[in-house]
Amino acid sequence: MIDHITPGFALDVLKILGIDGKSGEVVSTAINVESKHLHHKDILKIQDRELKPNEVDKIALIAPNATINIIRNFEVASKKAVELPPTIRGIIKCDNPSCISNSMEPIKPEFGVDGSEPIRLRCRYCGHIMEREDILQQF
Amino acid sequence: MIDHITPGFALDVLKILGIDGKSGEVVSTAINVESKHLHHKDILKIQDRELKPNEVDKIALIAPNATINIIRNFEVASKKAVELPPTIRGIIKCDNPSCISNSMEPIKPEFGVDGSEPIRLRCRYCGHIMEREDILQQF
Repeated sequence: MIDHITPGFALDVLKILGIDGKSGEVVSTAINVESKHLHHKDILKIQDRELKPNEVDKIALIAPNATINIIRNFEVASKKAVELPPTIRGIIKCDNPSCISNSMEPIKPEFGVDGSEPIRLRCRYCGHIMEREDILQQF
Repeated sequence: MIDHITPGFALDVLKILGIDGKSGEVVSTAINVESKHLHHKDILKIQDRELKPNEVDKIALIAPNATINIIRNFEVASKKAVELPPTIRGIIKCDNPSCISNSMEPIKPEFGVDGSEPIRLRCRYCGHIMEREDILQQF
């Protein structure tokens, strides 16, 4: 279960996970529901699905307050907040076509985190700013 | 509440309704859950949202067994199955670019229903077959 997703972004998280329902995955979502800690939130429950580290990193970019709860036999077996590292490496590309990280050089794109909610990334190479909408376009 | 949606198609129904969560709509979905009557189904609950006839027609194309329940004060106030008419008029365009319905003529596209689950439409003008994936592309 992924809880405390930024309200309105559960469907984007499903997209990150490549889930559209067509492969029979059992999924339930609650979108823009009231929350004790936040004003509103989204919740996502996915049956029998482990998240890859790379997927968790992507989720942190658009839903930095999300918590990932593993539920076994109707009990919470583990609970972990996603973590937005100070530097984002290799997950997304810089949108600036003339940025050196988009050239043939073997340079991994790298961004500093200027803001987390909503996300604001600054390219370490060209200073280009990437906002949430720009990032979602790559997922 | 929209019940008995073809399993795996709740997110497509949300797309038809133009709901992505970003406007604060309170929505919950259950995808690929077990059903008494069908093997599996999807369910969609949307708060304070009336469906336009044109939206119901689109839903019928991809989820012909869907039922639309209006819930007021926690009780089902009305329950109605969507209906797939024998002729589909003006909801989607023919995919065949040389079909006369795509010319400048004032002709409304029109399809006969060859099959309903999954949907199979036959253009009345050129005989071109439209399947579910082709139809979803237009929503």
